[in-house]
Amino acid sequence: MKLSARNQLPGKVKDIKEGVVTAEVVIALDGGGELTAVITKRSVENLGLAVGKKIYAVIKSTEVMVATD
Amino acid sequence: MKLSARNQLPGKVKDIKEGVVTAEVVIALDGGGELTAVITKRSVENLGLAVGKKIYAVIKSTEVMVATD
Amino acid sequence: MKLSARNQLPGKVKDIKEGVVTAEVVIALDGGGELTAVITKRSVENLGLAVGKKIYAVIKSTEVMVATD
Amino acid sequence: MKLSARNQLPGKVKDIKEGVVTAEVVIALDGGGELTAVITKRSVENLGLAVGKKIYAVIKSTEVMVATD
Amino acid sequence: MKLSARNQLPGKVKDIKEGVVTAEVVIALDGGGELTAVITKRSVENLGLAVGKKIYAVIKSTEVMVATD
Amino acid sequence: MKLSARNQLPGKVKDIKEGVVTAEVVIALDGGGELTAVITKRSVENLGLAVGKKIYAVIKSTEVMVATD
Repeated sequence: MKLSARNQLPGKVKDIKEGVVTAEVVIALDGGGELTAVITKRSVENLGLAVGKKIYAVIKSTEVMVATD
Repeated sequence: MKLSARNQLPGKVKDIKEGVVTAEVVIALDGGGELTAVITKRSVENLGLAVGKKIYAVIKSTEVMVATD
Repeated sequence: MKLSARNQLPGKVKDIKEGVVTAEVVIALDGGGELTAVITKRSVENLGLAVGKKIYAVIKSTEVMVATD
Repeated sequence: MKLSARNQLPGKVKDIKEGVVTAEVVIALDGGGELTAVITKRSVENLGLAVGKKIYAVIKSTEVMVATD
Repeated sequence: MKLSARNQLPGKVKDIKEGVVTAEVVIALDGGGELTAVITKRSVENLGLAVGKKIYAVIKSTEVMVATD
Repeated sequence: MKLSARNQLPGKVKDIKEGVVTAEVVIALDGGGELTAVITKRSVENLGLAVGKKIYAVIKSTEVMVATD
């Protein structure tokens, strides 16, 4: 599958915290730094996510903001 | 200002393409890789964005997806 | 690639309207009905989208609202 | 109320899973296929959602992505 | 139509700037302050938006961030 | 920090309901009316949010919809 969302950063799952409906996935980016994703708990199960697994963080361009100091 | 959006990745503006309402800002991340942001043209002007300027890409956690190979 | 976004509806491109930065893609769903997507013009080019092409509309669950009459 | 979000697909509630803050609503679309929505538990109560109830899935165009095989 | 998006603030259209695909609508809130919405140009036409028209700004709760000084 | 998200409405925290992963923050706007934000529980802790605290509701323009009666 090829996706219109052009932002795809490689990394590894660093931590998973599961609630009833949602789960928080902390991603250690290969380039350094972290990203946190809130996805459904079912997606965590469907993708077989576990600490250490290689994944991509995917973000639609319209969801990225810019900040300056 | 301190923001609830916990995803803040440092980088530099690599390219700006301006439309009538929106603008596409390509960000070269300090850790490697790129992110594209679609924001309003007015925000580009308000923030004084220009190629080479140091910025942060900011993303709300609920907007981050996870993909596996 | 397998994606955490669980909403993937099959359809065909019905219409594309391109602006400078963004493009509007009207999708005729296989099950009937239409969806409109606003993505970047570059993604239209990267995906080689054209009227009649078979695609999927993909939506993160946190972006779906519910309405009643 | 008439809404700018142009994507409104008719369906029925197939399943509801409630957490503390959010709830996952699985929607069986009239045209076939399913969509999952993550909304607040309070909205589930305010709308009186229950399995079998006729509803609409509503999605802002800027939240729809496109994927190809 | 009753919507799961619980954030509905009354106001008036203060300004509309139209691009090819999207439009920027500046809303003067009845309670003071402004909100800017980026919606499709077609939605501006479908809703018959014009300066001075009474409208509501509608926002899904998962899209609202919080900031402190 | 200066942010591209141009919608920043001042208010006070009226209520906080915490789940496992997410939290619902009800904001009483200074101009009247309320907004509900769903953010991560960790952001509630990082920002030190508590009832009565002065905050800003921040919303990206592409996330604001428009409705008419």
